Amino acid sequence: MLEFDKLSLNVPTTTKKRVVIIGGGFGGVNVAKNLDSRDFQVVLFDKQNYHAFWPLLYQVATAGLEPDSIAEPLRKLFGNKADFHFRLVRVTGVNPVEKSVKTLIGDLHYDYLVIAAGSKSNFFGNKEIQKYAFPLKQMTDALNLRSQLLQCFEQASITRDPEIQQSLLNFVIVGGGPTGVEMAGSIAEMRKHVLPNDYPGLDFSKMNIYLVEGLDRVLPPMDPESSKTTHGYLEELGIEIKLKTLVDTYDGETVVLKTGEQIKSQTLIWAAGVTGSMIDGIPAESIERGRILVNEFNEVQGLTNIFAIGDIAYMKGGDPAFPNGHPGVAQPAIQQGERLAKNFGQLVRNRDMQPFRYFNKGNLAIVGRNRAVADLPGGVHLGGFLAWVTWLFVHIFYLIGFRSKLVVLSNWIYRFFTYQRGTRLIIRPFVRKDDKVAQEFLVKNEMV
Amino acid sequence: MLEFDKLSLNVPTTTKKRVVIIGGGFGGVNVAKNLDSRDFQVVLFDKQNYHAFWPLLYQVATAGLEPDSIAEPLRKLFGNKADFHFRLVRVTGVNPVEKSVKTLIGDLHYDYLVIAAGSKSNFFGNKEIQKYAFPLKQMTDALNLRSQLLQCFEQASITRDPEIQQSLLNFVIVGGGPTGVEMAGSIAEMRKHVLPNDYPGLDFSKMNIYLVEGLDRVLPPMDPESSKTTHGYLEELGIEIKLKTLVDTYDGETVVLKTGEQIKSQTLIWAAGVTGSMIDGIPAESIERGRILVNEFNEVQGLTNIFAIGDIAYMKGGDPAFPNGHPGVAQPAIQQGERLAKNFGQLVRNRDMQPFRYFNKGNLAIVGRNRAVADLPGGVHLGGFLAWVTWLFVHIFYLIGFRSKLVVLSNWIYRFFTYQRGTRLIIRPFVRKDDKVAQEFLVKNEMV
Repeated sequence: MLEFDKLSLNVPTTTKKRVVIIGGGFGGVNVAKNLDSRDFQVVLFDKQNYHAFWPLLYQVATAGLEPDSIAEPLRKLFGNKADFHFRLVRVTGVNPVEKSVKTLIGDLHYDYLVIAAGSKSNFFGNKEIQKYAFPLKQMTDALNLRSQLLQCFEQASITRDPEIQQSLLNFVIVGGGPTGVEMAGSIAEMRKHVLPNDYPGLDFSKMNIYLVEGLDRVLPPMDPESSKTTHGYLEELGIEIKLKTLVDTYDGETVVLKTGEQIKSQTLIWAAGVTGSMIDGIPAESIERGRILVNEFNEVQGLTNIFAIGDIAYMKGGDPAFPNGHPGVAQPAIQQGERLAKNFGQLVRNRDMQPFRYFNKGNLAIVGRNRAVADLPGGVHLGGFLAWVTWLFVHIFYLIGFRSKLVVLSNWIYRFFTYQRGTRLIIRPFVRKDDKVAQEFLVKNEMV
Repeated sequence: MLEFDKLSLNVPTTTKKRVVIIGGGFGGVNVAKNLDSRDFQVVLFDKQNYHAFWPLLYQVATAGLEPDSIAEPLRKLFGNKADFHFRLVRVTGVNPVEKSVKTLIGDLHYDYLVIAAGSKSNFFGNKEIQKYAFPLKQMTDALNLRSQLLQCFEQASITRDPEIQQSLLNFVIVGGGPTGVEMAGSIAEMRKHVLPNDYPGLDFSKMNIYLVEGLDRVLPPMDPESSKTTHGYLEELGIEIKLKTLVDTYDGETVVLKTGEQIKSQTLIWAAGVTGSMIDGIPAESIERGRILVNEFNEVQGLTNIFAIGDIAYMKGGDPAFPNGHPGVAQPAIQQGERLAKNFGQLVRNRDMQPFRYFNKGNLAIVGRNRAVADLPGGVHLGGFLAWVTWLFVHIFYLIGFRSKLVVLSNWIYRFFTYQRGTRLIIRPFVRKDDKVAQEFLVKNEMV
């Protein structure tokens, strides 16, 4: 790597309006895609060079899909777009007065700024849990977790200490939302179909999967009927569900619940919440509950020409049907991105922007083979095989890139018939977060 | 990770003969596969949990295939084999007197020991080159190299210093054997079909690919006719070939050739040679030129009940048609593994072992689309489209595991029609080898 001072952003000057987008997720990509290159120069910043299909991240963590199957290089996505400039660099701040974005290798002036930086795991201030738990937000999280799961079984099969073995075979998932439910289901299916054959010496009746949720039902964002169906599916798969339960502490060895109950476990998976990946320079009064307050046009409260979309945006009261903001899933980000691009088109023509209105296409969650739930528009609730097939079609349909679709499809067809998981490879050894040397390396490379 | 003292190898005692295999490559896997579980208990050690199809590693390095596509978990390969025990642990030495293998978590007695540890990059004692060059032997090497290649283009597009830009766009490949030729060809095809679209701001006429070989032709192990054809293909793709040329030094910035010529380059790819991954405890008199001397039964010279196969074995004079040993490719390892397993079967029946005779099925090398060469038995030499199709069929046929075949096929079909490479993702940032902190981490985790 070259030193930063030998680099510069090198974006060509332009007479067009320059739209700078921070983040190549669902929101950012959909702004860029829908901007007309005749009217706008588009500059996209991301510290990763790919756009990933995060709803399938849990399948990477559980060895069902390769990382590459759920990701597309950003340069490939926009290879045919004129006056589009991708820069692989971390944004360090925003200066609304100078209308510029700061990066590690220089500043850049914007006419319109779109903050689509997404969200990160929220540990609600619990430093100890943050240190030892496994989050599941980034590609590296999924690879770490995959290595951890597999190493637990490898080690469980070579220890003679029954207490240690049990702690290796106890998996605690915190958070009963879609990610937690899907992780729990996926691990349970591995236990049923894959692991006994891989580890013939291990007694898998000893393996426990706990799903811990603070509220009184799993999948709180979905319809109570779907929650109930899901609860049944999880129990069928032998997952122990603890509702109205919070985690107190975790020291890497013992999970202590607020009820006082203790579970010895080497693996605590944290799927309990997210918070916005905040950018320096946004005034405190524009931030609420870790997200950026925006009006009905996704314009940041108190600032001009700065917009926020997707997970990081909090449209408080702006959308009549969603007065408390939108759910932190792909669809609001996609739709806000599309709307914002159109609004920029309006602005350069001196026309009025249109307010954003979220169209809820429905919610889906999958527990395992033939077990899924769907809340569709019009109050339709599907379960079982029908919801499962819906889930498959929707996810294949929305996967970006023909190649990914083909590879994922062939993986899934293969898995359906063989019950196998192909990608059980430990490519990068996992290291404990209290390992100072490794930690320094990870921090330095922004892998945490 | 648990401390090592809490673990033990935990291999069940047995009345059968115990065969301990070090290494899950082509050699080791083929011994294990062909041993009868009624006669033998098989214990396989590897520090990776997967068997990889190394001939396609260069495609991982050049973003053509995912790592997972060319690898199969060892436990999956042997999921149905009785009395087979895989242990994910590094072997630290052998004690031929006590007939035991030492590992990080304990020792294990063997009746027969098979050393199939393979080879590693050989820098011929040049520490500076070793420090800065990119080898291509392991999965992590391929991922590092993939990140490096992509980061070079990212940085070349954001530097205004023409000298630095040139050094980012110069790629020097050392070694004109199959790996070097295939890497050079693959990078050249990226330059032709993928990169100009990904980096519209970069002038790719400035990009140079150098292939440096010490002998007087490329692909020295192949027939001179195939070398000549390959030379022509490489030149058609715009690769600058330097024959009878050795590298003197490389400081991470400038490649100095023995001729005195200097090339500024951020990327030196080392494909110039390999040496055996030696195990402690093998007496010096049993080692020659970095490999373990074996007789015609692959028995290690001077030791009993210890055998070496594949890259690490040197059958000096044992095989009449190959008095100087066998080439370090997959086929000899596979055939030696098969032969050795049969010989173990002979031994338990008190019958004589059969000497190993290598059957050369031919050699293949690929430069790019429609450009390959094949030396087939009977002095047949193919080139062009015919050799290319042969290469495709042979590689798909030998790829282990139905899933990998399916995924690789769908990747290749996709690439054939679109000229795209799907997996251009920088998942793990690359770090310079002189970065102390990162280095310590890598060493500790045996990622180097």
